[in-house]
Amino acid sequence: MTDKTPVTVLGLGLMGSALAEALLAAGHPVTVWNRTPAKAAPLVAKGAVQASVPDEALAAGPLVIVCLSLYSDAGDVLAGASLTGRTVVQLTNGTPRQARALAETVTGRDGRYVDGGIMAVPQMIGKPGALILYSGDEAAFTEHRDVLAALAEPRHLGGDPGLAPLYDLALLDGMYGMLAGFYHGLALVRSENVEAAEFTPMAVAWLTAMLRSLPAGGRAVDTGEFGTDVSSITTSQVAFPGLIETCRDQGVDPWYLLPLRDLLDRAVAEGHGSDGLARMVTLLERG
Amino acid sequence: MTDKTPVTVLGLGLMGSALAEALLAAGHPVTVWNRTPAKAAPLVAKGAVQASVPDEALAAGPLVIVCLSLYSDAGDVLAGASLTGRTVVQLTNGTPRQARALAETVTGRDGRYVDGGIMAVPQMIGKPGALILYSGDEAAFTEHRDVLAALAEPRHLGGDPGLAPLYDLALLDGMYGMLAGFYHGLALVRSENVEAAEFTPMAVAWLTAMLRSLPAGGRAVDTGEFGTDVSSITTSQVAFPGLIETCRDQGVDPWYLLPLRDLLDRAVAEGHGSDGLARMVTLLERG
Ligand SMILES: NC(=O)c1ccc[n+]([C@@H]2O[C@H](COP(=O)([O-])OP(=O)(O)OC[C@H]3O[C@@H](n4cnc5c(N)ncnc54)[C@H](OP(=O)(O)O)[C@@H]3O)[C@@H](O)[C@H]2O)c1
Ligand SMILES: NC(=O)c1ccc[n+]([C@@H]2O[C@H](COP(=O)([O-])OP(=O)(O)OC[C@H]3O[C@@H](n4cnc5c(N)ncnc54)[C@H](OP(=O)(O)O)[C@@H]3O)[C@@H](O)[C@H]2O)c1
Repeated sequence: MTDKTPVTVLGLGLMGSALAEALLAAGHPVTVWNRTPAKAAPLVAKGAVQASVPDEALAAGPLVIVCLSLYSDAGDVLAGASLTGRTVVQLTNGTPRQARALAETVTGRDGRYVDGGIMAVPQMIGKPGALILYSGDEAAFTEHRDVLAALAEPRHLGGDPGLAPLYDLALLDGMYGMLAGFYHGLALVRSENVEAAEFTPMAVAWLTAMLRSLPAGGRAVDTGEFGTDVSSITTSQVAFPGLIETCRDQGVDPWYLLPLRDLLDRAVAEGHGSDGLARMVTLLERG
Repeated sequence: MTDKTPVTVLGLGLMGSALAEALLAAGHPVTVWNRTPAKAAPLVAKGAVQASVPDEALAAGPLVIVCLSLYSDAGDVLAGASLTGRTVVQLTNGTPRQARALAETVTGRDGRYVDGGIMAVPQMIGKPGALILYSGDEAAFTEHRDVLAALAEPRHLGGDPGLAPLYDLALLDGMYGMLAGFYHGLALVRSENVEAAEFTPMAVAWLTAMLRSLPAGGRAVDTGEFGTDVSSITTSQVAFPGLIETCRDQGVDPWYLLPLRDLLDRAVAEGHGSDGLARMVTLLERG
């Protein structure tokens, strides 16, 4: 017997399985459900109880963690279930708008709603360095904070349930940009038969150094002082045609570089050429 | 008097000034030239000799460092000058094609040609962590290696002068992707009045963690084994419409995310949905 909070986990994909496993490792009674039942086997072997329908899983305790592919999947899985006395912690990736809508549904059925954005890959869950951003019902979050801490460092951003998905999407945005740039650059050097094993350590060192420039860029945006003694928009803008021509010479799709070029051209045309790259933020905000 | 190699620096923009300053700090006699003469003043105050025309600067010693806006500027500045016995180290950003062409011009005029890509911002020049990638005449590089080490860690990639610009563009590619993602994400959170001062430390921590995934992605590309237990292309592909819709909801231009979405859609359509994101490399190479 344990006095640890029983937890229900709905969804046992790569991420849901990692979440359930971390809760088991922390000593919680864990009830799991997955559409494809076979995926529960490794967790059952470690002590999880497998429910055959979502309702049965929801009956097992006060705290319900949902981690499916899409928000609409979560709506389907929770549809019709009794949520009285339940805190639904929704860790499926979605949009602020979806989070606000699901929060209404859950609270309308006497449940409490917390949204979360997982800033980690499954392998990081339960380990130092993993972060989960939460928003929504703060009392429910605080009550279950210690349980959630078994998954990752929990950080609550505010009562609007849309905040966690917004931060989540904004951080994923940064990740997708970094991955796009890295893989695109890798395609470029591969066109001259350079292996990733040679290129990657250089790229990691370079990007690590460039990460140090982000706080200064952020300060420029907060203060509106966009002047630079580092590198100007014009310096990038004049270099871009060569970058794109080189992609074409080397047989690599210029891809995400084309809209970047267009924004740099627009920045120069609008008189921001001597500003630093942080100026791009204000140009994007007109969207 | 000094027995250190005299060095000529052509171009005193943000970067050229930083290069000249590092050479002065390392005790080299430095002769500088800049189209706009006034930019030489701070360097002259530190001991540099100012030449009034490029030819005069080129006469000052065997090693000539060029750092202008564009390759074509470098062609103009060197046009007609005597290059016999000179090693031209071209640190202006350009393309592999431009580097190969300028190398021919320089060697055709009895000079030796080394191309370089500066993987640093001006503030990093002469400090640990700065890297300059070189390619082209290896004997000339080796002869001047110790001088070049005063600027940044020097690394020679091979005899083809196009290699340094290719690596340089590939690494810049990664940087532009990271900056695009970061600034775009910042625009997203700013739409809910979140300040960069709050968002940036989170983004830096997250991107630092995500950088650790690059070597695994690189291995997938080298081996052609694209399966993943981290996060699949489908997981990203199904999340992308929500990300783009959120940009529109928040008044932020979806920008570089649109071609990313298109590539993810294509990857899934072509049957790569269960692969990791590294698979994107092979799809870009068809370009
Ligand atoms: N993997 C990561 O690195 C990562 C990181 C942060 C956040 N996330 C987010 O976490 C969520 C899950 O990701 P994942 O990597 O675990 O994905 P996954 O491995 O593809 O798993 C998807 C899960 O959703 C279930 N599912 C899909 N459609 C369903 C439906 N209509 N009804 C019921 N269940 C359904 C699947 O059930 P079946 O087993 O029956 O298919 C499976 O349990 C996503 O929102 C993702 O964006 C993932
Ligand atoms: N800044 C960085 O972070 C960085 C990092 C890596 C590589 N780089 C590369 O370094 C090079 C210089 O960058 P920067 O930041 O120093 O740029 P910058 O501050 O804009 O300086 C440009 C330099 O080029 C000269 N120039 C431009 N057109 C010319 C022409 N037609 N004839 C003669 N001189 C001309 C300018 O002379 P005036 O003073 O007369 O205008 C100035 O000296 C670029 O290729 C850039 O891509 C820069």
